[in-house]
Amino acid sequence: MQELTVRTASRTHFLNIDDPVSRSVAASGINEGVCHVFVPHTTAGVTINENADPDVLRDMEAILERMAPWRGNYAHREGNSAAHVKASLMGFNQTVLVRGGRLALGTWQSLYLCEFDGPRTRKLWVQVLPAP
Amino acid sequence: MQELTVRTASRTHFLNIDDPVSRSVAASGINEGVCHVFVPHTTAGVTINENADPDVLRDMEAILERMAPWRGNYAHREGNSAAHVKASLMGFNQTVLVRGGRLALGTWQSLYLCEFDGPRTRKLWVQVLPAP
Amino acid sequence: MQELTVRTASRTHFLNIDDPVSRSVAASGINEGVCHVFVPHTTAGVTINENADPDVLRDMEAILERMAPWRGNYAHREGNSAAHVKASLMGFNQTVLVRGGRLALGTWQSLYLCEFDGPRTRKLWVQVLPAP
Repeated sequence: MQELTVRTASRTHFLNIDDPVSRSVAASGINEGVCHVFVPHTTAGVTINENADPDVLRDMEAILERMAPWRGNYAHREGNSAAHVKASLMGFNQTVLVRGGRLALGTWQSLYLCEFDGPRTRKLWVQVLPAP
Repeated sequence: MQELTVRTASRTHFLNIDDPVSRSVAASGINEGVCHVFVPHTTAGVTINENADPDVLRDMEAILERMAPWRGNYAHREGNSAAHVKASLMGFNQTVLVRGGRLALGTWQSLYLCEFDGPRTRKLWVQVLPAP
Repeated sequence: MQELTVRTASRTHFLNIDDPVSRSVAASGINEGVCHVFVPHTTAGVTINENADPDVLRDMEAILERMAPWRGNYAHREGNSAAHVKASLMGFNQTVLVRGGRLALGTWQSLYLCEFDGPRTRKLWVQVLPAP
C-alpha cells in the first residue's frame, strides 16, 4: 500500500490525480491486475470523468451544488454537511484495471480527487493487486 | 482482462449485462474471488439494481433526470454535462463476488450498464481475481 | 466469502458496520490486502462517512430525501422507487484496504449500511484478498 499526498486549491476542486496514481502503479511492479484508489476522508471523494474540456468539471460541480447546496438548514454545526453527502455520492474508492504495467483508463477518462471542503491537504491510499 | 461490447438503444438506457459478464466469469475459470466490471467511458456508468419490475428502472431514470436535467445552462458546448454527472453518480466500476464459478448477486439484483448519452456502442472491461 | 446479518431500525437508517466487518477481516487471517463489502439487496447500499457527529448522518439522509423524495409520481407499484435510486447513489460495494490485519479507514471514517426501505434484516457479503 502506498500513501500519496495532494493539495487542493479551493472549496470545490476536481483535481486530476492520474500522474501520482500512475507512479504508484509503476512502483508496484505489477503488469496485469487492478489498482484500488482509496480516499481516507469524509468530505472528499474520488471519481472518474472527462479530461478534455474543463467545462465538464465546472458543470458537474454546479449540478452537484444544486443537488446538495452548501448553505442549508443543516443540523451539523461544522456547516459542511453538503460536502459529506457529495463525497458519498462520488464515492471513496475507485477500482481501475492495470494492463501492461499501466492504468487502463478509457480515452477520455481521468481520475479525479473530488474536494468538497477545501482547500486542504489530502491523502490517497493506493493498493495494486496482480491478476493470476 | 476481457473486453465486452454492448449496444444501447436510447439516450437513457439501463441495459442488463448479467449474461455477458457471467460468460466472462466462466471464461476466467475462477471459482471463488471477485469480478471487477469497469466502464471506460465518461457518459455511461454501471450499477446494480432490481431485475423484476422494469418500472423500477423507469423511475430511477426519471429521478436522475430531475436531479441532473438534460437541458440546463451548461458551459460544456457538447451539451451532455448531465450525462457526465449521472455517470459519476452511478459509478464506473462495480465489484461483484464470485462463488462456485458464478457471479454472486442478490436474488433481485442484476448488473446494468447505465447509458446517459446514447444510443451508442459501449465497451466493458472485466477482470476476475481469485480468492486465496 | 463471509455472510453477515444485520438489523436496521427504521425506514432510513445509516447503520455502522465497522465491528462485524472488522471481525470478518480478522477471521480471514489476511494481513495486507483489500476487503470488499457487498450488499446483495436493491433498496439498501453501503457507504463510508463520518463517525463523530451523528448530525452528519441525519443531514445526509435529509439531503438524499430531497434529491429522491419517498413520495412521488412513481410507476413502480411497490412504491419504493426512491429507495432503489438512493441505494444506487450510495453504491452496493465498498473496497477498503487492509493493513496490519485491520481495516484501514481514515480517522473520521466508518462503514455504514444505508437502509432506505426498512426496518429489515439485511445481509452483507465480505471477501478479503491478500496483497502479494
